[in-house]
Amino acid sequence: MTYQEQYANYLAQLEDTLKAVCDEQLPVDSKVGQAARYSLLAGGKRIRAILTMACCELLQGDLQAATRFACAVEMVHCFSLIHDDLPCMDDDDYRRGKPSCHKAYDEATALLAGDALLNAAFEVIATTSTSDTAKLGAIRALSQGTGLQGMIYGQELDMAFEHGLPTEEDLRKIHRNKTGALINASVQMGLCAGNASEQDKRILQEFAYGIGLVFQIVDDVLDVTSTSEELGKPVGSDAENGKVTFATLYQPEQAMEMARQLNNQICTVLHQAYGQRADFLIQLAELLLSRKH
Amino acid sequence: MTYQEQYANYLAQLEDTLKAVCDEQLPVDSKVGQAARYSLLAGGKRIRAILTMACCELLQGDLQAATRFACAVEMVHCFSLIHDDLPCMDDDDYRRGKPSCHKAYDEATALLAGDALLNAAFEVIATTSTSDTAKLGAIRALSQGTGLQGMIYGQELDMAFEHGLPTEEDLRKIHRNKTGALINASVQMGLCAGNASEQDKRILQEFAYGIGLVFQIVDDVLDVTSTSEELGKPVGSDAENGKVTFATLYQPEQAMEMARQLNNQICTVLHQAYGQRADFLIQLAELLLSRKH
Repeated sequence: MTYQEQYANYLAQLEDTLKAVCDEQLPVDSKVGQAARYSLLAGGKRIRAILTMACCELLQGDLQAATRFACAVEMVHCFSLIHDDLPCMDDDDYRRGKPSCHKAYDEATALLAGDALLNAAFEVIATTSTSDTAKLGAIRALSQGTGLQGMIYGQELDMAFEHGLPTEEDLRKIHRNKTGALINASVQMGLCAGNASEQDKRILQEFAYGIGLVFQIVDDVLDVTSTSEELGKPVGSDAENGKVTFATLYQPEQAMEMARQLNNQICTVLHQAYGQRADFLIQLAELLLSRKH
Repeated sequence: MTYQEQYANYLAQLEDTLKAVCDEQLPVDSKVGQAARYSLLAGGKRIRAILTMACCELLQGDLQAATRFACAVEMVHCFSLIHDDLPCMDDDDYRRGKPSCHKAYDEATALLAGDALLNAAFEVIATTSTSDTAKLGAIRALSQGTGLQGMIYGQELDMAFEHGLPTEEDLRKIHRNKTGALINASVQMGLCAGNASEQDKRILQEFAYGIGLVFQIVDDVLDVTSTSEELGKPVGSDAENGKVTFATLYQPEQAMEMARQLNNQICTVLHQAYGQRADFLIQLAELLLSRKH
């Protein structure tokens, strides 16, 4: 199977399971349920979910369980986007070219839709048919990646530096928490469904934080080097807002060189540990590095 | 041991464990962590937590585990109050005589503090040292009581009827979800720590929804019959806002008679099932009925 076929397979299985999970958790006779579905089923690359599924398969684990865990990660990611877009946070009217949740509905409904998604993510894991050890491991990984030692702390840091001038060290700390921690949780949840050893967890944690940072650096570079047609969203907004990013701290080509080096490093480690079985994850990393949007 | 001594014992053990849980989950070097602590450690009757602990002891279960589960319930209750007080929801500046979370901090911090508390509640359960069955049962009970089949749906209904005229049936549905479902979760989590049978769960579910409704009816009556000195908060606000409550649908004395009958009914069932072991829960119910604030 080619990389593209594998990716399409994962995505199809994920979207099917997401719909089933919506039917379990987000009743359509509730406006809040509708708002949560509106945001959750709006597509996207689903990188976190794909990581959960691919890491499970790397260890020949239980892919059905991993797919439900992957839905939980996407629900948490979606909750964070809905709350991030609210007027008291980033105040964004659009998300993926569609009105953001509080614009399509209203603020109170969007607030509750985010709350409902975060809560339901844990219920989805707890009601997955797999071992209790796998479920509790996934719940711990997800809550650690989400909370004040992870994503929510990253959102706090991001706000705190909004009007300050973060150093490169600050920037790495923001991204490690804001995006890295949930990406690591995605990976760890896949490993829980795959009965991973401590060594697997350690190796793939390095990979997770690495791929998260590469993703962020490329994001920052695309914001200054792309046209808005290529990117599908306004460009140059970071620089306009006086925001410090990897592409303002360094020349874009210099930042890309950092990303390439980091990517080589994490992919080499993965190949050494798992050989050909790591091919899918390595190609995923390469494509995130060379993407144009 | 008298009822009062038992209550004081539970409360002391709860507050100690809550502080330990804060040290695990809510770092003080985070502003969001501080805001979450500010609201979580602000006291209150802790009825939900006491129910978790007392229901566990009714079945001679693992009280240490139940106390951590009780902390998780209080964290979810606190998250719901913080988000409920936000400007886009009830826009309340005060909570228990102190500035509400978004007034003491700011809106974005309060939003994230609520998110962090909801998330951490599940981590607290998942990291409790007890059986995997008890932990997963508690996680399921809590997420069901919190989500769109429980509290969050109740908040949605409450908003939807804010400018309408709910019937008694609507009112019962709002309260069953908005407060009843989390009170039931508190009870069920205590039962998880007590290895309850299906029969125990069924009997105590009736008790939980009953005590929740009695509590709400008494609340509504006190709002029209008390002085603000007795209640420690402004009275008559429901009637002023044109809000339909049990005390506006019925005469206050008629509403109290409904509450008394319901209370007798649930306490009789409990006494028949558990005899003297149910004394604490029965006294708790009586006191919630006869309270003056």
